[in-house]
Amino acid sequence: MPFTPSAYNTYDFANRRHIGPSPSEMAEMLKVVGVQTLDQLIDETVPAGIRQKDALSWAPLSEYRLLEKMREVAGKNRVMTSLIGQGYYGTVTPPAIQRNILENPAWYTAYTPYQPEIAQGRLEALLNYQTMVSDLTGLPVANASLLDEATAAAEAMAMAQRSAKSKAKAFFVDINCHPQTIAVIETRAQPLGIEILKGEPEELVADQVFGAIFQYPGTLGHVRDFTAQCEALHEAKAVAVVATDLLALCVLKEPGAMGADIAVGSAQRFGVPMGYGGPHAAFMSCRDAFKRSMPGRIVGVSIDANGNKAYRLALQTREQHIRREKATSNVCTAQALLAVMASFYAVFHGPMGLKTIAESVHYHAVRLRDALVAAGADVQPAAFFDTLTVRVGVGQQGIMAAARHRGLNLRKVGTDRVGISVDELTDEGVLTRLLDAFGITEPAPTEVERGFPEALVRESDYLTHPVFQMNRAESEMMRYMRRLSDRDLALDRAMIPLGSCTMKLNAAAEMMPITWPEFGSLHPFAPRNQAEGYHEAIADLTEKLCEITGYDAFSMQPNSGAQGEYAGLLTIAAYHKARGEEHRNICLIPVSAHGTNPASAQMAGMKVVVVKSAPNGDVDIEDFEAKALEAGANLAACMITYPSTHGVFEETVRTICEITHKHGGQVYLDGANMNAMVGLVKPGEVGSDVSHLNLHKTFAIPHGGGGPGMGPIGVKAHLAPYLPGHPEEGTDGTVSAAPYGSASILLISWAYCLMMGGEGLAQATRVAILNANYIASRLKGDYPILFMGNRGRVAHECILDTRGFAEVGVTVDDLAKRLVDNGFHAPTMSFPVAGTLMVEPTESETKAEIDRFITALLAIREEVRAVENGEISAEDSPLRHAPHTVEDLVAEWDRAYTREAGCFPPGSFREDKYWPPVGRVDNVHGDRNLICICPPPEAYAAE
Amino acid sequence: MPFTPSAYNTYDFANRRHIGPSPSEMAEMLKVVGVQTLDQLIDETVPAGIRQKDALSWAPLSEYRLLEKMREVAGKNRVMTSLIGQGYYGTVTPPAIQRNILENPAWYTAYTPYQPEIAQGRLEALLNYQTMVSDLTGLPVANASLLDEATAAAEAMAMAQRSAKSKAKAFFVDINCHPQTIAVIETRAQPLGIEILKGEPEELVADQVFGAIFQYPGTLGHVRDFTAQCEALHEAKAVAVVATDLLALCVLKEPGAMGADIAVGSAQRFGVPMGYGGPHAAFMSCRDAFKRSMPGRIVGVSIDANGNKAYRLALQTREQHIRREKATSNVCTAQALLAVMASFYAVFHGPMGLKTIAESVHYHAVRLRDALVAAGADVQPAAFFDTLTVRVGVGQQGIMAAARHRGLNLRKVGTDRVGISVDELTDEGVLTRLLDAFGITEPAPTEVERGFPEALVRESDYLTHPVFQMNRAESEMMRYMRRLSDRDLALDRAMIPLGSCTMKLNAAAEMMPITWPEFGSLHPFAPRNQAEGYHEAIADLTEKLCEITGYDAFSMQPNSGAQGEYAGLLTIAAYHKARGEEHRNICLIPVSAHGTNPASAQMAGMKVVVVKSAPNGDVDIEDFEAKALEAGANLAACMITYPSTHGVFEETVRTICEITHKHGGQVYLDGANMNAMVGLVKPGEVGSDVSHLNLHKTFAIPHGGGGPGMGPIGVKAHLAPYLPGHPEEGTDGTVSAAPYGSASILLISWAYCLMMGGEGLAQATRVAILNANYIASRLKGDYPILFMGNRGRVAHECILDTRGFAEVGVTVDDLAKRLVDNGFHAPTMSFPVAGTLMVEPTESETKAEIDRFITALLAIREEVRAVENGEISAEDSPLRHAPHTVEDLVAEWDRAYTREAGCFPPGSFREDKYWPPVGRVDNVHGDRNLICICPPPEAYAAE
Repeated sequence: MPFTPSAYNTYDFANRRHIGPSPSEMAEMLKVVGVQTLDQLIDETVPAGIRQKDALSWAPLSEYRLLEKMREVAGKNRVMTSLIGQGYYGTVTPPAIQRNILENPAWYTAYTPYQPEIAQGRLEALLNYQTMVSDLTGLPVANASLLDEATAAAEAMAMAQRSAKSKAKAFFVDINCHPQTIAVIETRAQPLGIEILKGEPEELVADQVFGAIFQYPGTLGHVRDFTAQCEALHEAKAVAVVATDLLALCVLKEPGAMGADIAVGSAQRFGVPMGYGGPHAAFMSCRDAFKRSMPGRIVGVSIDANGNKAYRLALQTREQHIRREKATSNVCTAQALLAVMASFYAVFHGPMGLKTIAESVHYHAVRLRDALVAAGADVQPAAFFDTLTVRVGVGQQGIMAAARHRGLNLRKVGTDRVGISVDELTDEGVLTRLLDAFGITEPAPTEVERGFPEALVRESDYLTHPVFQMNRAESEMMRYMRRLSDRDLALDRAMIPLGSCTMKLNAAAEMMPITWPEFGSLHPFAPRNQAEGYHEAIADLTEKLCEITGYDAFSMQPNSGAQGEYAGLLTIAAYHKARGEEHRNICLIPVSAHGTNPASAQMAGMKVVVVKSAPNGDVDIEDFEAKALEAGANLAACMITYPSTHGVFEETVRTICEITHKHGGQVYLDGANMNAMVGLVKPGEVGSDVSHLNLHKTFAIPHGGGGPGMGPIGVKAHLAPYLPGHPEEGTDGTVSAAPYGSASILLISWAYCLMMGGEGLAQATRVAILNANYIASRLKGDYPILFMGNRGRVAHECILDTRGFAEVGVTVDDLAKRLVDNGFHAPTMSFPVAGTLMVEPTESETKAEIDRFITALLAIREEVRAVENGEISAEDSPLRHAPHTVEDLVAEWDRAYTREAGCFPPGSFREDKYWPPVGRVDNVHGDRNLICICPPPEAYAAE
Repeated sequence: MPFTPSAYNTYDFANRRHIGPSPSEMAEMLKVVGVQTLDQLIDETVPAGIRQKDALSWAPLSEYRLLEKMREVAGKNRVMTSLIGQGYYGTVTPPAIQRNILENPAWYTAYTPYQPEIAQGRLEALLNYQTMVSDLTGLPVANASLLDEATAAAEAMAMAQRSAKSKAKAFFVDINCHPQTIAVIETRAQPLGIEILKGEPEELVADQVFGAIFQYPGTLGHVRDFTAQCEALHEAKAVAVVATDLLALCVLKEPGAMGADIAVGSAQRFGVPMGYGGPHAAFMSCRDAFKRSMPGRIVGVSIDANGNKAYRLALQTREQHIRREKATSNVCTAQALLAVMASFYAVFHGPMGLKTIAESVHYHAVRLRDALVAAGADVQPAAFFDTLTVRVGVGQQGIMAAARHRGLNLRKVGTDRVGISVDELTDEGVLTRLLDAFGITEPAPTEVERGFPEALVRESDYLTHPVFQMNRAESEMMRYMRRLSDRDLALDRAMIPLGSCTMKLNAAAEMMPITWPEFGSLHPFAPRNQAEGYHEAIADLTEKLCEITGYDAFSMQPNSGAQGEYAGLLTIAAYHKARGEEHRNICLIPVSAHGTNPASAQMAGMKVVVVKSAPNGDVDIEDFEAKALEAGANLAACMITYPSTHGVFEETVRTICEITHKHGGQVYLDGANMNAMVGLVKPGEVGSDVSHLNLHKTFAIPHGGGGPGMGPIGVKAHLAPYLPGHPEEGTDGTVSAAPYGSASILLISWAYCLMMGGEGLAQATRVAILNANYIASRLKGDYPILFMGNRGRVAHECILDTRGFAEVGVTVDDLAKRLVDNGFHAPTMSFPVAGTLMVEPTESETKAEIDRFITALLAIREEVRAVENGEISAEDSPLRHAPHTVEDLVAEWDRAYTREAGCFPPGSFREDKYWPPVGRVDNVHGDRNLICICPPPEAYAAE
């Protein structure tokens, strides 16, 4: 009898591991939704007119074959010792941090800590980060990270413009800034109408500018005191920005002591691998007076309902999701996970350890300088920390090749110099090889003098807070990391049903390669032939994304969704300009758009015109057409989200594109909701010209508690020539510090695409739509569902209308906090409609978990009904007292309901219950009493 | 002014990371202990006469350099596709399991689940393992793992001897068993006086034997039905053992259905990397009637104080720590972590997935056979699952070389055959390369017939329990793993002060290399030149262990401490035999010895003579001398533990060695307490001849929740010729399946030695002694300390005398369970003295954590005093109700103390409190109603 193995494929990553519902669960769900087949549901949801014709083509790989392929590709990268510097340095990632943070789903699958009760752990880690940045830079207020040093510098420029009393229109840029920093500042300045004046620091004419930025240490190594410049700027009512290096500040006078108003830089060398460009956390700190114009998220200290200390995000009214086109910046996703790593690096080493590392780096730099000088080399500068520039004349290529031959990458400076930056990894062996490359056989001297003047020696203490003084034994560190992670609720414990955020599975196999040294240890400016593995990965990912989206080209440079929007609009602007239509500056944006849309448009120098919504939630076509007509020859672009932020596939998307094109505009289709389209609809075929993709939503990069993200943009062929460039590649329009943004995490999305295969991706989309429609079907009797398509279907998310509850005093906050008692992160609140909850389950959630969530919401609805029926007041109800803590349980119980009812509502786990460490957090208190560095020891003692 | 960096070394692994107390903490602790310096304390603790003269020699490596070196060494291994089989197979470790179990300190740092209230997670995972083994083998009772297949087979032989009603003295061994299995059985049989009869299964004469073992599938691939043999054995009142393969049993008739009484085998190919030999979990299952003679740990289901389901270890009275020389086996450490991995592999794939994998493996085997046969090859056997043997005559070397050239390792069988085992990783590419090696260019046929007869097709279902039917999406699996780990308390959350177990830090850097494929993917019988990296590591570790111990040679083969004892005693016996003194068979063992000592001696065929303790806890020298004299020319050995199990450096150790040697005996010094000696005392210099080292105690291998461990033995030169051998190396005296035991975890100990450096290791020892003496000093006012040295010092652990509490009804169990409320694992209970607690903090605990523990113990002492003073009865006290659960808090509270007092005793964390998922577990109930497979679904439904 013939024998063939069962067709069941246990290695089918898409259907066995990534997609949540099993076939039998799906059958049950389809029944509830009221369709015969998944295809029927999709036909009823996604308009036939926009469906793609061809299926995605590539076959899937199993997890095992994926990792095998990844190892093969990793082997094509060559890990050398990069002494290139220029903002990226060798560093030691402490293994305990790698294993317990970067490789731990409790940390990497967490969402941005907007719900503070379930995020106390990462909020504490980020507060430690802010404290570290504030201390080292000598400025009292710091944020919880920005995307990279270059964009942080550009943000500082914009912040200076907002804050300066000077009426000048120009901004001075020290030519000692890193080239990529200057490039991003120039890109950013142009649409904002800011003139950039470049020069040596002493060339600053303070009256001419609203602000200035200096690099410290300079890109070629110079260490200068900017006190005089800061004073001159202040006299001219202008703002002083210093781009700096945290490690250098462990021994050098801090920018705050020079009078700087703002400091920016990268925390990369605090234990975060270079990763061929990222992700790393940039930092920003400022004087107290500037705090309300600070971009990005700021963690603050407040109190909870019981008056106990509790952390939360402060001053959120600054942020793009609130202020929209009036936002101080479009920063949304930042680099939380990497900020957490850098903060733990500081906790791990403490001030004494950091200082020793800095001293050791400097010592090696001085020894190197002395050895070179002794051999007759022309070495600059006289005052330096870690970086030297050697004039080698026509020998430049020869010296660099000799160094490479010895495993060392140097920096090419101009045509006749080489740059050398030593780092934490530099040891005797590296020094010897380096000198050897210069033909010097004498060992470097060991008796040396400090390489910078006494006046620049740091005098103030730093990291005096107890957390940086704690015992640094690994057992203690490991337990501290574990305790913090246990305070938080992330995807490793429960569904995170955040509408528009696509909190899907971040599979272990996808995450593994990023911590391999072959990917982690590459400098972004290393010679291309050392990065063949990366380029193979990027090329193949690009090809797949093109096939998925119907676009013709991609730029991987934008390192967040908001950056992608911004880069996409710049690309459009550049296209118009190249056609002599520079005047086109109007951008039509529907009222329901993500807050980043108008914020990005404003930054790209466009004028935002808001388009109304029709009653069914769709874009109001008449209004759209009218406003396009009104814009006429000035129409630059429209920005639409598809499916809409209301979670619906609007039938009119093609019409919108046509209207826009008719008036000479370009269509920007926000890819935030791409998870409802992959494999079913290609934006490029629907009429769109450019989109960004949130790789951290649709393409499985974890959210990391608020970053990293990646927001590459895809464009049609006509826009391809205008995509972002990079000074290292001799091109312009630079939007990020590194040519490929946070290159190392592109591997996650690539792995996801490879393991899913084309058909797996399409199936994931279908199931994401099924899961959302299942929730809508089960809940619609108790919660009205806003905005369903004309066949009564939602796309991949659904909006629960809870506005009616306000009549009896139950707020959307009450619902969100009550869900914590059930062990869930809240859905997206009040977006796109105030007072509602937007639920996106993603394809990765199983029916069991979705049912648990539905059980919870139905039970909450009953609790609301009890209020509606007058059985209990909103104030006395468990809704208002939520979330419940162990402290509540232990204390006297004088509630109108039982402990059992309060703590174990239906849907909550019993033996595996998640207990929030604090009760409901008081936001107002925190903003009124802003504390954004670690509270003083007394506050800890009182705990 | 000259500039030199601070001398502070932040990369000093020993003093910054591994050793807990900081220098300032140490200063405070020394004050409490009452000495000026650490050296003074050591001088007062460790007798001058035994101190080693020379410091350990090697310099330490930083974590970064260690990993760099490890990568370099890893690169010296060559990963090929091994089709060698013989008990080890390629397998896919699901990345989610690798990351969330094997690389997760919550799992790997846990202790053996003797305290069930804090171990419900791993107990559930091990119960899943038992259920899986029971289902697949078709036998109702399974244990929670054994060391490897070969030792499991030997255990089965001993178990058969204990259980059989037959009076025969011989045991039949199927020559189709793996060679290493036969070798270990032969080693084990000899001292027990069991005659081994070997032959083909049909050659069995049942009357001659008390039992027989058959391999299924056989080592050369044969699949036979042993029903007739089992019947014959049963008729002869003998026992039938089948060594088998779990994957094969997914498609083949199960041993239980053939009438087997016992099944054994390895669970390696269920997702556990080969690791050049291990660690992997062996399994054993048996008929119900045999359960009380089952070796190893068995997880059972019982109830807690509230009547809720709770897991625990069952039938502990069988175990060596209770039965000592009457134990059924000396098994102590097993392979819990690997059993957990294998159980998750089964959960991950479910029965359908496992069956598909098995079918696919078989399909490839049949295709291969058909292709070979079509080409005219002589292929055996006719009925097979995954393994073929091809007669190639004089072409053997050529074929093997051709295969190697194509990246494939085949098995050398005799001089004219090659063996080929296909596995989960075998794909079309492997088949093609393989056929190519045979010169066959035709592709393998795809239409084939089953390769074993209908009668051997499995008919029964398996893994029908809901846990194996759960949704297998990675999100769900990840959350299940997280939930289980959250139920447990391991080193990643708190100190585990277990006397004699040395629960020290298992550093992240030490753990990283073991999951690299260069170490994980090597077959233990791969050609030596593919394992140069391993051999470099093993050679260097050997050299360092020799220097540490003063021994001249080491065998890495024993894969647990008990195995080491056994191997050491066999080495001694072989030495005596070689000198014509085979009659020497008496082994002197102090009454305070670990239970494994007498159990091992008994297994090694020695007669145990117990030596008394003096009142101060030391060995009673007079009694020792008298018994040595009495043994006279029959004295084989003495087994002593140093420092003693009482935690004291006995001054008389040299005397004991001299007496033993005088009578011609050899000294076995149990290395369990080596953590008090490394760098200070070398056993080999004190007079000992052989020791095992518990690498999972002193040398940083994590306990893994009950294994893996490693117990290599060191010997003086005169014993070196008698160390264990291995059939793959053409030598005998084999004690483990693989030549180097669980080779891959040797890397952990090697990494530990390399990073600590010689001086770091000595300092660790000093601080371990300081930590123990600090605890003794702080507690001695409240808890009498038993057994201090003659200068009032303990070694690295101390015994708290709590026997007096019994008078008022407070038991040592009450104390242990109350410590759970404080967030601690209990110290070792009632060993070596009943009714006491033995505390070993290790050097890795910080003063803060030790102080927290002391605070807890002092608070408990106050609670005992309240009972002593009559303020509360023992029954009503929090001591008796401990541990307290959330269920207690939520329920009506009618206790004589407050919720606060019950749940938050001094020392417990508040916001980070650990809540045990069950209350006190009822041991008696569990043993009376033994359930050792997953409870039926109804039981779950009732949860």
